Amino acid sequence: MSSLGFDTVALDEEKRALKIIDQTKLPGKIEYLFLSKPEDVFQAIYQLKVRGAPAIGIAAAFGLYLAALEIDEIFSENFYVKFKKIKDYLASSRPTAVNLFWALNRMEKVVLDNRNESPVKLRELLHDEAVKIYDEDVRVCKSIGEYGLELIKNGDGILTHCNAGQLAASRYGTALAPVHLGRERGMNFRVYCDETRPLLQGARLSAFEMVCAGVDTTLICDNMASVVMKNGWVRACFVGSDRVAANGDAANKIGTSGLSILANHYGIPFYICVPTSTIDISIQDGSGIIIEERSPHEITEMWYRERMAPPEVKVFNPAFDVTSHELITAFVTEYGIARPPYAESFKNIFTKNKIGVYQ
Amino acid sequence: MSSLGFDTVALDEEKRALKIIDQTKLPGKIEYLFLSKPEDVFQAIYQLKVRGAPAIGIAAAFGLYLAALEIDEIFSENFYVKFKKIKDYLASSRPTAVNLFWALNRMEKVVLDNRNESPVKLRELLHDEAVKIYDEDVRVCKSIGEYGLELIKNGDGILTHCNAGQLAASRYGTALAPVHLGRERGMNFRVYCDETRPLLQGARLSAFEMVCAGVDTTLICDNMASVVMKNGWVRACFVGSDRVAANGDAANKIGTSGLSILANHYGIPFYICVPTSTIDISIQDGSGIIIEERSPHEITEMWYRERMAPPEVKVFNPAFDVTSHELITAFVTEYGIARPPYAESFKNIFTKNKIGVYQ
Repeated sequence: MSSLGFDTVALDEEKRALKIIDQTKLPGKIEYLFLSKPEDVFQAIYQLKVRGAPAIGIAAAFGLYLAALEIDEIFSENFYVKFKKIKDYLASSRPTAVNLFWALNRMEKVVLDNRNESPVKLRELLHDEAVKIYDEDVRVCKSIGEYGLELIKNGDGILTHCNAGQLAASRYGTALAPVHLGRERGMNFRVYCDETRPLLQGARLSAFEMVCAGVDTTLICDNMASVVMKNGWVRACFVGSDRVAANGDAANKIGTSGLSILANHYGIPFYICVPTSTIDISIQDGSGIIIEERSPHEITEMWYRERMAPPEVKVFNPAFDVTSHELITAFVTEYGIARPPYAESFKNIFTKNKIGVYQ
Repeated sequence: MSSLGFDTVALDEEKRALKIIDQTKLPGKIEYLFLSKPEDVFQAIYQLKVRGAPAIGIAAAFGLYLAALEIDEIFSENFYVKFKKIKDYLASSRPTAVNLFWALNRMEKVVLDNRNESPVKLRELLHDEAVKIYDEDVRVCKSIGEYGLELIKNGDGILTHCNAGQLAASRYGTALAPVHLGRERGMNFRVYCDETRPLLQGARLSAFEMVCAGVDTTLICDNMASVVMKNGWVRACFVGSDRVAANGDAANKIGTSGLSILANHYGIPFYICVPTSTIDISIQDGSGIIIEERSPHEITEMWYRERMAPPEVKVFNPAFDVTSHELITAFVTEYGIARPPYAESFKNIFTKNKIGVYQ
């Protein structure tokens, strides 16, 4: 359990279920869900009960391990066929965040690399891999926090969008990792949380998480960021990302691209905090990133006592947008800070740390 | 009654009450209120049952006339003392929109210019002045529509923020006047309405009004404007203003300044539509405009089934922001289009048309 008093996503004590805090109930209720079936894990991801790129990856990895417990095959070949089917099913729960596919691919690789092992052994290896993904995420987020702290001073005002905090990862989070880590060391920041329409992750999750951590937190509507910046209250913007292309174009929660344009206009640094697992070198630029469109209901009715728009109106509800690499001051990763040109700095980080395609 | 099937603000048939459509109930219910006491008019303005700079001015003018009916003085001097007290009271209902003060000052001038007339005669003159303010607004808005239509072509996509339509004025509105007038002439525009947090005037009022007028209307969250612009769907932004300074800095609904920065970034023209009564030549620049701050409740609880933010969080809720004159492509007024430098173009318009301080 983290210092905030809750876990975002974990294996339960008996290792028979995925335990998540139901984020659709926050901040009103702290309610845990125990999921063991692939369908339940799929629904929890799809319905945003667990969300945030790293947390989705961890949930899917644990979910795939739990599913593997139920595959009653004697031969590993048949085991793989059934395993692959569940993997593909979980991969279809959300389209934008690359960590989902990254984590599921890591799990699949365990099975493919150990074709001759028995299903019993494979289950054990899958468990270890999922735990490894979780443990790595804790270390990665802490490291992002360390590098992020190099960019700000005690007392600074920070603006964040959506939630890329502990509730989006294992611990610390990505964008909020510097704030959490700074807080552990007795530092104080003033954090401005965009409420983040339509799903209010800023108001419901980031503000909740920051208040739990004892941080000086101010909630604003998304359309107030310009004033907060103009007033000189913001030293830097910190946001997360769901997928970063090779050139530095970055998909993140809808509203991020607008925020980056405002920050640029006011001369405020705009930082994106991501584990390198979020950098998708296979995609050249942002145009290759699939953007999820969600139901009009989220904008017109959800949360409200009554419908807030005329019935005949059309609704456009993209869940993410792509921030152009030109508007991003730097990426904060677990291996350090990447500055433009990103094609080059990403390549250096990947090569130096022997990651993925550049190996 | 306008072609939309409702009046925003009018005198009732017996001329004993102000009749307004209760905008806090839209779009769910079309409900009229009949107000005759100054307290009721004050509350209707304060609680945003009637809102929008021109509509507030008209409501206050009618409200002041109705109040004058109740002043039972024989001597006009005493009449003025009581009249002035009610005028100052109504002027305190909202601080930002200049039309409120402009309309009330016009009403006061009637009494001051006719000191020797009897209260009976004064009441008659006040009635005529309020009706004149109303009639002028209809003509002014229509004229804004004419000039606005010069800036767009049939079929264009238009983005608007908050509501500066018929629901913010007598008829036609300001920012939406080109759309309404074009519609009367068989033109079709695609209108994107920012929902406009926290009070949702875009979702509740503009979208409602546009749908009533048979316009192709798409609702978006405020933070989606960047994507809609990037996708090339917007030919121009049209917004209103509550007060324009002599240099062209313009106060309007919170979020407008951010929108102007986005439009600028994407090379999209950003037009502000205002009657000249909204241009406050006595204020040099935007720093002189008082910005109303409203209750945190509007962001954290209003409209919702339950509170959507942790109880301990601070909230910043400015109702307006100031858009820098440098980001405004042009102002559309009833006397034509004003282009930068605004100090000069405003002066030309005021001098040529014998308005206010430049006379």
